[in-house]
Amino acid sequence: MSYKTLKKSSKSNARLGLLKTVHGVIKTPFFMPIATRGSVKAVTSDELKELGAQVVLANTYHLYLRPGLKVIKKAGGLHKFMNWSGPILTDSGGFQVFSLAHARKITNRGVEFKDDVSGQKHKLTPAKVMEIQKVLGTDIRMVLDECSGYPVSQAKALEAVDRTTLWAKQSLRYRNKKQLTFGIIQGATDKKLRQKSLEEITSLPFNGFALGGLAVGEPENKMWPIVGEFAPKLPDDKPRYLMGFGKPHQIVQAVKCGIDMFDCVIPTRNARHGLFYTWKKSASISRKTFYSELRIKNSQYTNDMKPIDPCCDCSTCKTYSRAYIRHLFMAGEPLALRLATIHNLAFYLSLMKKMRSAVSLGKL
Amino acid sequence: MSYKTLKKSSKSNARLGLLKTVHGVIKTPFFMPIATRGSVKAVTSDELKELGAQVVLANTYHLYLRPGLKVIKKAGGLHKFMNWSGPILTDSGGFQVFSLAHARKITNRGVEFKDDVSGQKHKLTPAKVMEIQKVLGTDIRMVLDECSGYPVSQAKALEAVDRTTLWAKQSLRYRNKKQLTFGIIQGATDKKLRQKSLEEITSLPFNGFALGGLAVGEPENKMWPIVGEFAPKLPDDKPRYLMGFGKPHQIVQAVKCGIDMFDCVIPTRNARHGLFYTWKKSASISRKTFYSELRIKNSQYTNDMKPIDPCCDCSTCKTYSRAYIRHLFMAGEPLALRLATIHNLAFYLSLMKKMRSAVSLGKL
Repeated sequence: MSYKTLKKSSKSNARLGLLKTVHGVIKTPFFMPIATRGSVKAVTSDELKELGAQVVLANTYHLYLRPGLKVIKKAGGLHKFMNWSGPILTDSGGFQVFSLAHARKITNRGVEFKDDVSGQKHKLTPAKVMEIQKVLGTDIRMVLDECSGYPVSQAKALEAVDRTTLWAKQSLRYRNKKQLTFGIIQGATDKKLRQKSLEEITSLPFNGFALGGLAVGEPENKMWPIVGEFAPKLPDDKPRYLMGFGKPHQIVQAVKCGIDMFDCVIPTRNARHGLFYTWKKSASISRKTFYSELRIKNSQYTNDMKPIDPCCDCSTCKTYSRAYIRHLFMAGEPLALRLATIHNLAFYLSLMKKMRSAVSLGKL
Repeated sequence: MSYKTLKKSSKSNARLGLLKTVHGVIKTPFFMPIATRGSVKAVTSDELKELGAQVVLANTYHLYLRPGLKVIKKAGGLHKFMNWSGPILTDSGGFQVFSLAHARKITNRGVEFKDDVSGQKHKLTPAKVMEIQKVLGTDIRMVLDECSGYPVSQAKALEAVDRTTLWAKQSLRYRNKKQLTFGIIQGATDKKLRQKSLEEITSLPFNGFALGGLAVGEPENKMWPIVGEFAPKLPDDKPRYLMGFGKPHQIVQAVKCGIDMFDCVIPTRNARHGLFYTWKKSASISRKTFYSELRIKNSQYTNDMKPIDPCCDCSTCKTYSRAYIRHLFMAGEPLALRLATIHNLAFYLSLMKKMRSAVSLGKL
């Protein structure tokens, strides 16, 4: 068994656990910084390690197109190529292909799309996605699924559920012992479809399960009922992954629903736009208001010599003032992106650590 | 005396020395990485220190406009603002103002210009430039001068020489003991004008002297006669600075002419465009061919798993392959800028170190 629960909260569905991979054991719940193209934007893998990142997420689709498998194979796999010795999860690329709505054709055999950089046509099938990820040599492989988006008709959402199950079964033929393979549950915001997808996918021998197709534009009052009902229904003895999710207070909420794994562009993308997450003094992470958003471009920070977050001990906060970081943003200096990304990742990774500690102490 | 010659080459005009500033002693000859706006693009001051940078160059004009003096004053000076504890030289901004040809008006009183970001009108006078640099608290202040550019009529070049001398005299009223103040010699590519400017400026009690207005577009066969004749004529007991200069083999040549100080955007700007400097194995720095230029975007590096420069021990070369760095450039990943900048600065700083060693051993 690759996953082990160490402790369950008595106050919520939150759990503390360990996920074993070839490149190391990951403490759950955890957050994966996004390295879509084999690089977390503006930071090095050494910095990620210092920040306490346990695992990063890269994208099968993007790496398959550029630099291509030949290069990564020659490098000896993605870990060596990008100089990251810890675990890597690769998303299948299904979500990315489905986002390019006008450039794709989906059949039961797979998905055809046009690379908008080279103009070349490509095809991804469930088998090919598994084989690409085998070459990448990543620790956790996600199967090809169909993400139905929002809004979507029930008929279309059903079609996506059926195709996702069909593809999941095909993908399992490509299992191997070095890599974990995760199944994905679809069904949009329809509880009956979610139940059907959950039953079909969790009946298959995957190493972990993900809720996909959430946080794709639906209102929170349609999303939370799905997370709240289906996270706890995911197998107890396997890791549970809520894909592409979320803001800090949403991650806390999802951990309480029983989710173990997260990835999201929010901390890194917002950092690059000058939006920082900061801790509120002595606020419990159980409250929605445990953090603030600081928009560094606001003029109030022009003369502010305090660090971004006086409660944070990341290298950005230990070294630079709000005034300096604001100046870098206003002047378009590339160092801004890096200092900002480091702080927001420190915030997210520290949030996960606090949650693990809270579950361990029976406080979440 | 702030400057001391330790050794003179018997084979050329090259010299080895020490330049004392409030923020530390600098070994000459040296190269100053460019931190125009208080940040060497994409790298931190900690990395600069690790790279062995002794001193950085910032720009009076740029910092005066953004973030403005109020902010830097509140931070306690530029050193604290940008987290750089070593010496800083500030260029006067004269060169920048004169590059904005259509947005300026020059009189003997100073120069008026329009900030093309805010649209606001500003005026720089010799006195104001000194006072701004006093607030910045930098170690070496350059006076306001008039750079005549290339091509230029003799009449215009003479006017620039006269105005530069007038302004130099005015600037000297603002000397102080904490900051070194350097005079600048103009005269375009005209030897008579250069001689006049040199005599006028070096008769004044500056702490060091610069040749300005070179490498501004003139062909090399008009530039080298000026450097070759006037570098050795600069006072022997003061540091000699060739502004905005140059390619690696040109820097070696200028050191042989007796120059001690350099700054240039070439290593950092070229890095950001994917052009790397690499050492040729066992080639002497006295030869023009001691280095190569590697353009990482060329397709030949797609599958190249060697470091940028196998002879280099910078963090980029110790950690990442050409194939990976090429991928970062082709994918537009911001990490590319940083890894590239680190390598090219390592090359330039190592070149300066090799030259100091060569002069010390009597080999340059």
